[in-house]
Amino acid sequence: MFLVVMAGGSGTRFWPKSTSKRPKQLLSFGRDPSSLLAQTVSRFEGLISPNRRMIITTQMLKEPVRGQGLNAEILAEPQGRNTAPCIYWAAKTIFAQDPHGIMLVMPADHHILFPKKFIVVVEEAVKWAIQNDHLVTLGIRPSRPETGYGYLEMGETLDPVGARKVKKFVEKPNLAKANEFVQSGNYLWNGGMFLWKASEILKAFDLCMPEMTRAWNQANGKIEDAYPQMTATSVDYGIMEKAENVITFPIDCGWDDLGSWTSLETMADALDTRKGENVLNQGDLLSIDSFRNIVDAPHRLVSLLGVDDLIVVEQGECLLVAHKNRAQDIRQVVEEMKKKRPDLV
Amino acid sequence: MFLVVMAGGSGTRFWPKSTSKRPKQLLSFGRDPSSLLAQTVSRFEGLISPNRRMIITTQMLKEPVRGQGLNAEILAEPQGRNTAPCIYWAAKTIFAQDPHGIMLVMPADHHILFPKKFIVVVEEAVKWAIQNDHLVTLGIRPSRPETGYGYLEMGETLDPVGARKVKKFVEKPNLAKANEFVQSGNYLWNGGMFLWKASEILKAFDLCMPEMTRAWNQANGKIEDAYPQMTATSVDYGIMEKAENVITFPIDCGWDDLGSWTSLETMADALDTRKGENVLNQGDLLSIDSFRNIVDAPHRLVSLLGVDDLIVVEQGECLLVAHKNRAQDIRQVVEEMKKKRPDLV
Repeated sequence: MFLVVMAGGSGTRFWPKSTSKRPKQLLSFGRDPSSLLAQTVSRFEGLISPNRRMIITTQMLKEPVRGQGLNAEILAEPQGRNTAPCIYWAAKTIFAQDPHGIMLVMPADHHILFPKKFIVVVEEAVKWAIQNDHLVTLGIRPSRPETGYGYLEMGETLDPVGARKVKKFVEKPNLAKANEFVQSGNYLWNGGMFLWKASEILKAFDLCMPEMTRAWNQANGKIEDAYPQMTATSVDYGIMEKAENVITFPIDCGWDDLGSWTSLETMADALDTRKGENVLNQGDLLSIDSFRNIVDAPHRLVSLLGVDDLIVVEQGECLLVAHKNRAQDIRQVVEEMKKKRPDLV
Repeated sequence: MFLVVMAGGSGTRFWPKSTSKRPKQLLSFGRDPSSLLAQTVSRFEGLISPNRRMIITTQMLKEPVRGQGLNAEILAEPQGRNTAPCIYWAAKTIFAQDPHGIMLVMPADHHILFPKKFIVVVEEAVKWAIQNDHLVTLGIRPSRPETGYGYLEMGETLDPVGARKVKKFVEKPNLAKANEFVQSGNYLWNGGMFLWKASEILKAFDLCMPEMTRAWNQANGKIEDAYPQMTATSVDYGIMEKAENVITFPIDCGWDDLGSWTSLETMADALDTRKGENVLNQGDLLSIDSFRNIVDAPHRLVSLLGVDDLIVVEQGECLLVAHKNRAQDIRQVVEEMKKKRPDLV
């Protein structure tokens, strides 16, 4: 089995903690001081040998990723083009090394509270990928009616351990739909984590996105030339929603995609929440009459007095104070900052 | 004329910008980078010669005050005992140098937006102090129904330039009373700024607080011995409310006692308020959908997103985020901090 960690993200929603040169996957959250990327790689210690691990990132992040000192090969995309080209490249690379290779595709910037529960399911899923040539997308049993995630509708049960046909991929729902989904028990969060034979996903590419292999062949496998010709789309949209042999395994492992600062509230189990009703990621906190705030300020002592529902983040020269219901709008701040102080984003 | 600047204050309401070793009078607010103390001294440049200026402070602040490099004598009180002992000591010191000396007593930590208007009134007041042996308390024409200040009720008009008898000293009023005071036009804010002959105030001490001279004489003028025996009270309460010859001059000079962070809103003229509807003292500010906040964070770029009515202050290791209506409760934070990190208060 090969591990493919997709670490090209350049998210801005954790600014100022995250910046273009220090994106989310290179940050640490909660008690574990290692980065989300390092946690993702080490999660498969013992399951996947170091010479079968690859981290795919961007040119800009190549050095910071190397700086993490992880025992894995680092591939740098010529440019970011969503997940389909990245996965195609990884599949080609693996197939060249081992035509029977299985690949597990993991985003580098998710949080998994119970990695052992996750591994158990992965090991089940591997059997299906090997024996039945299925494309597996790992689904997360939803714990709340989250409107920020896409969902998988489960179909036919394939075995008692958990394998289910995927009936449909569903875009981010509104709250009413999300409530329905959770109550029905038939929907999973689409976590963007995949497992398949390299040969099978390449077969699916040839079926659903034949332009990828054309670009690859025209460039004689030279990635710098092939990449600009490849379709910049997600593997979900390009392949998974179209392929016939897609199955899923429901997982219940305390997963969170850490989509914004408010995610820290749902992963509060992993954080030091002894500070009362505020979530403190890094730094120290003194709170008086202050509730439901999210604080991250390494090396700082933050005092809150009579304030609620704030995001308070300090990093280097930058201090952000935002209302929690504006967590998604931090990108607006980043856009302004790009004009004012591009060195700080 | 002698200048007596009272610089012993140890206010905590500007924490974390102010600390016990760096109290308000040593800080700067607004565009002028010099400290409130330095501004207080330099306000009388040309009016009072350097060898007739004295700054009275505490033992703890002696060195920081000296560090300001001001052209004035520095006296350190053996201990803080409110204003009456401090003024008694200053009067004795001045009287010894010049039995006809006039003394102008100024708190070191007030803000005066229009110092020239202030000086003009002081010069008028000096005439009254010299010619009529009056005790002058300089009053501020109120610009709003402030409940945080004491008031002076004006009596008989003594001259067309502005001298008025003081009818009564009034404690901090409630809002209804304060409104009445402002509308009547007969009340002034008690600014704690005084002008008199040293000989006259000593006469008043002997009349109203004879224990002060007793303590002084018993200690043979040795201040370390005299101070602990002196009554720790304000000169307002000990003398001014009782003396007969008290007059005032209404001043309209953009005065503010800077009692808390919210004072910065009323002195916003002196601040850089181009930043929209927030008040920025130090630092840089990027504001999106954020209003009426007060920010002070030297060397930081503060981003506000969707937040209103906050006080955001950073100093060294400390970051404070407080609701504006809790400005008076910052002392609670300081109390907690004394237990947790006494080095930071």
